[in-house]
Amino acid sequence: MDGYTFSVPVRVRFADTDAQGVAHNSAYLVWFEVARVEYLRAFAGGYQALRDRGVEALVLESFCRYRVPAVFDDELVVHTRCVGLRGARFRYEYAILRGDELIADGHTEHACVDALTLRPTRTPDWLVAAIQAAESAAG
Amino acid sequence: MDGYTFSVPVRVRFADTDAQGVAHNSAYLVWFEVARVEYLRAFAGGYQALRDRGVEALVLESFCRYRVPAVFDDELVVHTRCVGLRGARFRYEYAILRGDELIADGHTEHACVDALTLRPTRTPDWLVAAIQAAESAAG
Amino acid sequence: MDGYTFSVPVRVRFADTDAQGVAHNSAYLVWFEVARVEYLRAFAGGYQALRDRGVEALVLESFCRYRVPAVFDDELVVHTRCVGLRGARFRYEYAILRGDELIADGHTEHACVDALTLRPTRTPDWLVAAIQAAESAAG
Amino acid sequence: MDGYTFSVPVRVRFADTDAQGVAHNSAYLVWFEVARVEYLRAFAGGYQALRDRGVEALVLESFCRYRVPAVFDDELVVHTRCVGLRGARFRYEYAILRGDELIADGHTEHACVDALTLRPTRTPDWLVAAIQAAESAAG
Repeated sequence: MDGYTFSVPVRVRFADTDAQGVAHNSAYLVWFEVARVEYLRAFAGGYQALRDRGVEALVLESFCRYRVPAVFDDELVVHTRCVGLRGARFRYEYAILRGDELIADGHTEHACVDALTLRPTRTPDWLVAAIQAAESAAG
Repeated sequence: MDGYTFSVPVRVRFADTDAQGVAHNSAYLVWFEVARVEYLRAFAGGYQALRDRGVEALVLESFCRYRVPAVFDDELVVHTRCVGLRGARFRYEYAILRGDELIADGHTEHACVDALTLRPTRTPDWLVAAIQAAESAAG
Repeated sequence: MDGYTFSVPVRVRFADTDAQGVAHNSAYLVWFEVARVEYLRAFAGGYQALRDRGVEALVLESFCRYRVPAVFDDELVVHTRCVGLRGARFRYEYAILRGDELIADGHTEHACVDALTLRPTRTPDWLVAAIQAAESAAG
Repeated sequence: MDGYTFSVPVRVRFADTDAQGVAHNSAYLVWFEVARVEYLRAFAGGYQALRDRGVEALVLESFCRYRVPAVFDDELVVHTRCVGLRGARFRYEYAILRGDELIADGHTEHACVDALTLRPTRTPDWLVAAIQAAESAAG
């Protein structure tokens, strides 16, 4: 998928489906999160590395466009990239594919906060550097 | 809440929380859905009335802005209205409050589809009429 | 429901359903939890009262017998009682009804732990007293 | 894991956790289901093969014993076997390990039903044969 740095496979679980016979709209946000977690593992020592240094990343905003329903047992690939680092904030963009077919896309917006006070705190330099290295390698 | 037709209370369940100690971002989409379902019950005979006539409403798009974290046991009120009816499509807008505090807002975009073929089908006249009556009463 | 102290209504959400068109088996554990939380609110100052005093109640065991499928929008009533208090442990029993029909029953087994160390700690006397008062009133 | 036919890895997702900082008790039932689905894929053509022939497997009962809390990002292995085939019914047993440590075990009881009527129907011969072959190979 052009322009995306990273991807992770997810399988639609039976628990993800609803009585319309398709994956429930909330499941996509969980898949986005799985992709973020694996991205951080691949490029920045894992989300736990943030938490270990007293930083949490909050979700400020989520957006998902559902283009084609996904169904039970579908093998999906969640493509993701991290963009728009500035101050405490950054954004992940996502495209979910089933084979060559784009079934959903969207983004989440985040802010780093101090884990104790939940106040915004600049994204740590080591994390900025890790993300920039990952994204420029993909360019 | 000005301009909102309808509201429904939801309580943050322990199962909605995550290891950050706040409600997980995907829970808000479920609360949006609870509000839609209750809206249709109040104004249009319930979602099952659609399904009984062979119509499903798909979610095309979801957007949520998380302003203040919600925590376990919070009593929230989800305000909602239905706007932008045209052809097969309509949109719900939401504002989630805890007391007077806006903790999240967002929208979902929908299309009516034939329950068997999943092809788009005009929103049924009776549903359009019911929504317009509800929304103009609120005006 | 004979022998049950307490009950709480729950509505089957669309998000609770799966592609079999029924409520997913994991949703029942969430409803059990909703009933426990409301039980503690009614009789013992709420679950937060435990947490505020540095106690958490862990789930050691869950059991659910699914007798009749529940479907979207069903109005269920979760009946519950707390039994078997001894040392750090106690048990909740549940019966979920739809009208007069028993659709599921089960139990969960719990232990009080210190919130910091997660080591077992005797159920606090005030909580034991509150539960015994609630259950003997029901007798 | 002695006596278990099959295993599947699962990673604890952030969405699986709760405000106690551990995986929520309902998540284990979803992991059990993931293991059943992969078992059927490995040995019997997949769950969809059942559905394609008009058979659904209902969950009649679930039991889980939570021995050690699982936390975010844990790599777990769900071991499973299918036992007790008779008439319409069968049972899966599970043991969830983190490394060498048993963190949970349990079972689910199932019945085959006709997908249209939801009435019990004998487990199809081809499925019985496939399960028996899988389990005797493991013996």
